[in-house]
Order: sequence, then structure tokens, then C-alpha cells
Amino acid sequence: MAVGPGTLPTLHPVAGFRIGTTSAGVKKPGRKDLVLMEIAEGASTAGVFTLNQFCAAPVRICKTHLQQGMPSYLVINTGNANAGTGKQGHQDALDVCQAVADRAGVAIQQVLPFSTGVIGEKLPTDRIISAVPAAFDALSDDGWLEAASGIMTTDTRPKAYSMQLEHQGQVITLTGISKGAGMIKPNMATMLAYIATDAKVEPALLQSLLSRAADQSFNRITIDGDTSTNDSCMLVATGASGVEVTEDNSELLAQFGAAVDKVLLELAQAIIRDGEGATKFVTIRVEQAASSEEALKTAYAVAHSPLVKTALFASDPNWGRILAAVGYAGIDNLDVDTLQIWLGEACIVENGGRAASYTEAAGQAVMNREEITIRIILNRGDKQETVWTTDLSKEYVAINADYRS
Amino acid sequence: MAVGPGTLPTLHPVAGFRIGTTSAGVKKPGRKDLVLMEIAEGASTAGVFTLNQFCAAPVRICKTHLQQGMPSYLVINTGNANAGTGKQGHQDALDVCQAVADRAGVAIQQVLPFSTGVIGEKLPTDRIISAVPAAFDALSDDGWLEAASGIMTTDTRPKAYSMQLEHQGQVITLTGISKGAGMIKPNMATMLAYIATDAKVEPALLQSLLSRAADQSFNRITIDGDTSTNDSCMLVATGASGVEVTEDNSELLAQFGAAVDKVLLELAQAIIRDGEGATKFVTIRVEQAASSEEALKTAYAVAHSPLVKTALFASDPNWGRILAAVGYAGIDNLDVDTLQIWLGEACIVENGGRAASYTEAAGQAVMNREEITIRIILNRGDKQETVWTTDLSKEYVAINADYRS
Repeated sequence: MAVGPGTLPTLHPVAGFRIGTTSAGVKKPGRKDLVLMEIAEGASTAGVFTLNQFCAAPVRICKTHLQQGMPSYLVINTGNANAGTGKQGHQDALDVCQAVADRAGVAIQQVLPFSTGVIGEKLPTDRIISAVPAAFDALSDDGWLEAASGIMTTDTRPKAYSMQLEHQGQVITLTGISKGAGMIKPNMATMLAYIATDAKVEPALLQSLLSRAADQSFNRITIDGDTSTNDSCMLVATGASGVEVTEDNSELLAQFGAAVDKVLLELAQAIIRDGEGATKFVTIRVEQAASSEEALKTAYAVAHSPLVKTALFASDPNWGRILAAVGYAGIDNLDVDTLQIWLGEACIVENGGRAASYTEAAGQAVMNREEITIRIILNRGDKQETVWTTDLSKEYVAINADYRS
Repeated sequence: MAVGPGTLPTLHPVAGFRIGTTSAGVKKPGRKDLVLMEIAEGASTAGVFTLNQFCAAPVRICKTHLQQGMPSYLVINTGNANAGTGKQGHQDALDVCQAVADRAGVAIQQVLPFSTGVIGEKLPTDRIISAVPAAFDALSDDGWLEAASGIMTTDTRPKAYSMQLEHQGQVITLTGISKGAGMIKPNMATMLAYIATDAKVEPALLQSLLSRAADQSFNRITIDGDTSTNDSCMLVATGASGVEVTEDNSELLAQFGAAVDKVLLELAQAIIRDGEGATKFVTIRVEQAASSEEALKTAYAVAHSPLVKTALFASDPNWGRILAAVGYAGIDNLDVDTLQIWLGEACIVENGGRAASYTEAAGQAVMNREEITIRIILNRGDKQETVWTTDLSKEYVAINADYRS
């Protein structure tokens, strides 16, 4: 139940960044569920995190440690989110950090913790801490694919992307992994992503590149409108390539920035393609809006409508449901007589109703596809926004009704 | 797939209000799908309508006609919403009104049209107009139950309520019907409701009583967060009892107002109990909020969360999903350490995590019930709001994926 083949490209190692994956038995024995990432000295690290006010203990600690200096280790467990766990959860996350710090001989502030899985159950710190040495032993330059599997929850397949760009004969590598399949919505979702590059980038610039890219990728995807307590996206620049990206070199900055955007978009879209129970990959593009805000409001109203999503699942060109969702998106003084709605290459709505040229056959032809684009042309201005989402299938309900059992 | 027995009380006739139901074959031959309501001269009529900007042609005409005087007839078809139908749809709705007006010898402005069903298909006016005489012939004081069935779409059972109150030895009757099962959300949903009383009430006062009651009932229910193009709720006061409700008689006004509130709440809750695929009736109550707005925001975040709704369907006390939804509701400076969340009589969240007293057995006992109350105590003020919703079942997806086939 995922859209597209999910074939992964070659995952280039990133010099100065090693990964080790092992089994801690967090939820199920034998499952590889603990990932350790080691960052070489002198690297910069940037992060963006969930806006959920019940953000998990590891998220709070990540933010605090990141303010205190550059991290040397990221430690990630799946199977337990350590969220809604109060003071105990905070201490548990610190205990895991301490175990990593002790083993490496670094300060606890140099370790950032991440957790994903069920909310509200105590983190089994004993099992995680016992597995820390094995994670260190597993550290390698070539650990990306195993880590992509190691951070999965209800994901059906690993998600990763890698690319290289050339600058004056030198090569910059960017490689990343992501996970997430449900509780996916703007402002980061049950979503973890780790991207490393061997470019050299100062922390402030790296943060601004990450924030911009995340805003146009992870913050534009939605499966079910639920924002998780644990979402984190980290970008590490080791500098090992010797190529420095700075504000002064605008050409390289643009090239590198586009690459960061590309890697994050690929990782974000991979999450949608593997959305819980997903059978469709849906692009919703709102054009000619008066503001980005109203473009997003409209796009999300359509993307979150269970009626639109079930029609997509059924491959039913029930375009009236799209029209209804646009109508309740909350745009003041919407002129329903001049806006247009397109399903793929078929105009479905104009002049306040079904387009004269529309035929059920044309709508059906688009709906039968695995990848569908809905375009809404508001005719109110020159702003546009795109979001990506999935259909709502019986499988989605089955997955989420059975998740804990 | 509906919650509770759905037993209807005795539906008292309302003097001055007659109803006729017949078959027009709008969508399926033989189905009783056309309802005519006749309002005696001298009655007052009030209405509240959908806020969807793509509101259907009949809704626009209702509003216009209602401004031009008091109506004598309401004509309702199921099987076709006459929404997203542009100018043609407008003319079609007027044609139906004209047919009723001609037969009765009244002005077209005295006829209000209502439609519910599939969006975007042309209203089969020929068939409806041909059936108008039969609807007139069927008019009777005792037509409530047949009409309750005649306005159904994906509803599995008719919805009606009736009550009487005494004032100084005189009896006032209130009887109403409603329909709706999906596309149900605040600001009226694919929801139609017709309530009549034999009290005498001036139009302005009647409107204010209706608006208040609708705000606390139909505007507090949500199944899927979709707001329909066609929602309408009408309250007719025929005056035939001779009892006049005025602002001057505050005791009678309070008594009558409470009765209007009660009838609308019963009709609104009946819609939730018969929500598409519903297996649970869920009350979400937010207390100690700083404002009604933030109480509603919190309640709807929980009510619309697919993850909470699938957990309810599974009878799974996965309380972490409720906590996560409260966390992303968008309340600024929420103090997660002092709020409480209750599932029935079990406190599930306090001190920023799972309540110390909580046990899985206690949560399971509540979740196993058909009727579940979630209470969220924000500890920020003295405002409170309640909304009602359902779970999200596989059956919901099946119904909405198969609706047009």
C-alpha cells in the first residue's frame, strides 16, 4: 500500500558522518530499532522541530542542547515516542544521552536524543542503554540504508535520497533519510529526517537554509492533519569536502540551497507516497491567490476533507466534494463565479458550477491514475502554494485502529 | 451502524402546519423523495443556512425569498443537492418554486426550496414538477414521520423529536425532523432540519431563538469536518395555539426558549448517533478555557483528529492521541503541566503526562462503551464549550468511497 516503486538511489557516504544501527528490543525483540549518528568535530548542525505544545521530552532536550553548542552524536530509537511521559520521560531521555556521552567521552550537551513510536509509555532505558555499545561498534560511513530502516514505525519501506553537485571541480555530497507515515501534517509530523552534507556551512546560514527548505517540503505535506509530538528534522554540515558555502558566494549558495530544497522535498514526498494506507499521491496547487495564507487555507481544506480523500480512494471523480471544500475553506468574499478548479488536465469547475467542457470520462481518466494533481485557480492575486497529500482508504482506518494491538 | 436504539417519541401534530410526502423519482424510482410543507397564514418563519461560499442555488433563493415576506410553502427534494450547478441550477430551483406557487395560487416568493443529495448534477425538474400535485394531495397534519424518511440521504433511520409544554393551562407543541449523516461540521452540515410550533412568536424574536439554539446544537456537531453547500434549519411558529411568546413575558420566553434549545439539540445529536459508519457517540467538553474560541478550537482539534477517531472506533484507550491533538490545537502558551484530560471518569493526563492514577483497565472500561465523554480541563479561565462527534470506522470510508456507485 504505497504509491510508486520506492526505488532508492545510490546513497553516497558523507565524509565526517558515521551511522550505526542495532537492536535494543524497545518494542519487539530482534528489530533494529536504535540508530546512532556520529558527527565529526567542527561540523555545524541545524534543526527544526514540532510545534505541538505537548512536544516530547527528547524534543525539549534537543532544543536545549542545540543552544549550548554543536552536537557530536544523535541517538534515535523507534518503538516508543517518550511523549506524554512527564518528568520521568525527561529523565529517561537524559539517561540515554548520558550513556552515549559516557561511552564517547563527550559532554551530555553534545548528544541529542530522538524517539518515535507509541505515546505515553515509559521509555525502556535499560534496554536502550545496554545496546549503546553495540551501536558504537556498528558505526560506519556506509550506514544510511540500515538507518533508514532502523527509524521506521508504520512505514512500509525505507526512505532515503542522495545527490552530488560539482562546484569548480569539487564535489559536494548530500544524503538523507526520513520516516513517517501517519500523524503527518504541516508544522512537522510524526516525522524524523536526518540529512548530512560534507559542505562547510556556518550554523546560522545552515539553519536558515534548513528552515526554508522544511517550510516548502515537510511543512507542505499532510496525511491526516495530526501534528505529532516528536517531529524533528536535522541538517548536519561536516565541512569535510573543504567546499565552503557562504553568503558571499551567491552562485554556490543558490546551487547548494537548491540541493538542500531538493533533498528535503524528495524525503517529504517519500513520506506521502508511503502514507498509511495510501493508494494515491495527490498534489494540490492553489494559484492566483491574494496571499500565501489563503492559498494554504484553501489547499489544506481540500487536503484534509475526508470526503475528498475517500473519493480519491474510490477513484471517483466526485468533483462536487472538491468544490464544497473550496467553499468552506474560509476565504472571505470568494467569487465562486470566476474561480476554476482543474482535475489533472480536465477543468471541472467554472462559472460557479460544473465546467461546460467537463465529461465524466475525462474526470474518470484522471482519477484512475496513481498520481493526481488538483489545481484551484482563485483569480484573486498572484500568490501560489502547493501541498501534497494522500487518499483516505479503509487500510488507513485498519492501520490506526489496530496500531497498538 | 448507528449508536443507540433510535426510538422516536410520539410526534405531535402542530396546528397550522401540514406535510405531504410523495415520490418524484429524483434519483431512484419509487423512493419517497419529495416533501411539501404548508404553513398557515399569519405564521412566522426563521431560518439559518450554510456558510459554504459555494452554497447551493436553493439556499440562495431561500435567503432572498425569506427577506421578501413570510413563506407559505417549503418544498424539499432528496437525491440531488442542486449545488455547483451554476445559473441552470438557479433557474431549476425557481421552476420548482413556481410550480408550487401556481398550484397553490401564491406568489413565488412565498415558496422556499431545499435540496439534498449529490452535488453537481442537474436537478430533474420535470420529474419533481410532475410530482407536485401528488405532494399537495398528500398534505396532512400527521405527516411528520413520513417526511422524516422522505428527506433522508445516507441516513440509516429517520430523525424526529416532539415535545409539549404547558403555560397557564394552555399547551404549546414543538415537533421537528432532521436529516444528515456525513459532511457534518460546524456552521451547519449536509443537514436539513424543520421544526414547527403552534406558539405565536414575532419573526425577529423567532430568528434570535433559532440562531441561539442552532449555535449550541447544529453548530456544535461534527462528523468529518466537511461543511455542506446545502444546510438549512427552519423554525416555523404558526400561532395556532393562541399562546404568544414575547420579550415582555420573560418566564414564558425562558420556558419556550429552553424547549427550542432542547428540540434542536435532540435533532442535532440524532444526526451524530446516525453518523456515517458511527459506532460511538462522543461528547467532547472543554472546561476552564480563557475564551469560548479556544475551548472550541481545542474541542474541534480532538473531534477532527483521524487518529483519535480511529482509536475510538477500535475502543483503544490510546490517550496519547488525545494529548497530541490538544497539543496542536493552536492554543498559545498552553501550560501542559497543569491541564487535565479525562476519559469518562478516568483522569488520563495530568502533570504533563499520563496520570499517576490511570490504569489501562480503567481506560478500556470507558472505551468499551457506546457513549464516551472526553473532558479537557485547560485551567486558564471560566469558559466552557461542548461538541459532539463520532468515531471514524472502516464503514465510513466504505460509505463515502461508494456513495455515487
